[in-house]
Amino acid sequence: MIITIIGLGLIGGSLALSLRQHGLAGRLIGVEANPAYARRALELGLVDEVAPDLAGAVAQASLVIVAVPMDAMLTVLPQVLDLITDRQIVIDVGSTKGNLLAAVTAHPRRGRFVAVHPMAGTEYSGPDAAVRGLFEGKTVVLCDVEASDLDAVAAVETLFQALPMRVLRLGAADHDLHTAYVSHISHLTSFALALTVLEKEQRGEQRIFDLAGGGFASTVRLAKSAPATWVPIFKQNRENVLDVLDEHLHQLQKLRELLVQEDYAGLTAQLEHANEIRKIIP
Amino acid sequence: MIITIIGLGLIGGSLALSLRQHGLAGRLIGVEANPAYARRALELGLVDEVAPDLAGAVAQASLVIVAVPMDAMLTVLPQVLDLITDRQIVIDVGSTKGNLLAAVTAHPRRGRFVAVHPMAGTEYSGPDAAVRGLFEGKTVVLCDVEASDLDAVAAVETLFQALPMRVLRLGAADHDLHTAYVSHISHLTSFALALTVLEKEQRGEQRIFDLAGGGFASTVRLAKSAPATWVPIFKQNRENVLDVLDEHLHQLQKLRELLVQEDYAGLTAQLEHANEIRKIIP
Repeated sequence: MIITIIGLGLIGGSLALSLRQHGLAGRLIGVEANPAYARRALELGLVDEVAPDLAGAVAQASLVIVAVPMDAMLTVLPQVLDLITDRQIVIDVGSTKGNLLAAVTAHPRRGRFVAVHPMAGTEYSGPDAAVRGLFEGKTVVLCDVEASDLDAVAAVETLFQALPMRVLRLGAADHDLHTAYVSHISHLTSFALALTVLEKEQRGEQRIFDLAGGGFASTVRLAKSAPATWVPIFKQNRENVLDVLDEHLHQLQKLRELLVQEDYAGLTAQLEHANEIRKIIP
Repeated sequence: MIITIIGLGLIGGSLALSLRQHGLAGRLIGVEANPAYARRALELGLVDEVAPDLAGAVAQASLVIVAVPMDAMLTVLPQVLDLITDRQIVIDVGSTKGNLLAAVTAHPRRGRFVAVHPMAGTEYSGPDAAVRGLFEGKTVVLCDVEASDLDAVAAVETLFQALPMRVLRLGAADHDLHTAYVSHISHLTSFALALTVLEKEQRGEQRIFDLAGGGFASTVRLAKSAPATWVPIFKQNRENVLDVLDEHLHQLQKLRELLVQEDYAGLTAQLEHANEIRKIIP
């Protein structure tokens, strides 16, 4: 099967590696707007060729994967749907779904599109960030599958199960709500934590470097993530992100107040409650 | 050399393993108030014996390591100093230093005490959390060394360099300020993040479990930490922690406002600034 991947960054590039590794792609064609990324993707062998034009790359493929940032996704996905026949399948790999699905809901080829979110990533970006095995054992969410053709859903499900990934079906609204909790807020707090430390330690970078242990590194790791990836995600999922952020600010204020009041029994009770996250993230 | 370790939890237990591994302790004596921990430490072979009384355990040791939570530290450290001769050395391994050093500043054996903070840990606690190699390649901070005897400082420095750790000397006030930035705030935000998600997902724990990727796990990991360890740290370093927390709330509010205003250029600029943390945490 010929697969075309539009966008050869962290997710597109890692998918290319996984598809090749599991023998799922006879030929991999890339489409990449950034010439440096295109060259690098070829050097790394992520794809067999980088196509000069979108239409040609789409025409050859049985499956087209759109792996561009969420803002570009809103324009690229309808373009791709305009180009396909009813024997081809298109998926996205985007982190938000509501606006994207609304943008293609009336498209005559809507049935050939399956909305996909592989729940995996790192804080790095671009083709050099592509890593083998990124998706192995992780969850992939398929959204609003009832709007997609049965054969397309079955083919996509089989493909991701072979990586192997665990397939979960969710409504787009539910997906956007839950990812705000378990992914988007983590990135936002990590960015804010980095800003806090950079602000406070303007003249003490060497000190942070000397003292920062594993705990700091793990909470601040996501702050290395690309703004070009994350601003569009926050934009597309703005209402859910603001809702969860307000709850987070409330929880931080509550802890602050307990510390201001020197209510250490109250603080202990809150931290014990927080420990219940162990049940969820073992 | 006989070494007595008071407190056989994560740090005391891991130090026991490291000291033994590097041939630095001829005999390891433990003191542990929790009978279940004492039994477990023996089963795990962390120490050669658990002594029934503090005085006897201290009397035999060339080096006494106090590795109890920060609140207990304030009472145990002066007790230990009361028990030693001027040929013995005492260290703590506490996460805050200001109040602790103030509590022993006038003690006649102050010179025999070296204030030590090995910058390493995990989110687990108790003797079962002890891990080999926890301190390897990490930084250990020695505080206010000018108040300690030269021979004691030299011996402690040599000991930690052998683990091997990188020794850094800092004033206690500086230490407490910088650890608030690079350790304490990370724990506080992680606890708050766990509370946020637990609050928002009260009926959706299975969903969090299904969807949570590596990013969420890494930001929320520290929320599994023991309140018995962390409440005393927040208490002892309250002013610095509140100061850094207020800055963090300010940074979160700033990101929130940009999102509310849909100022995505401004948001991008902030996240690009946050990316500078890459220079510090490569």
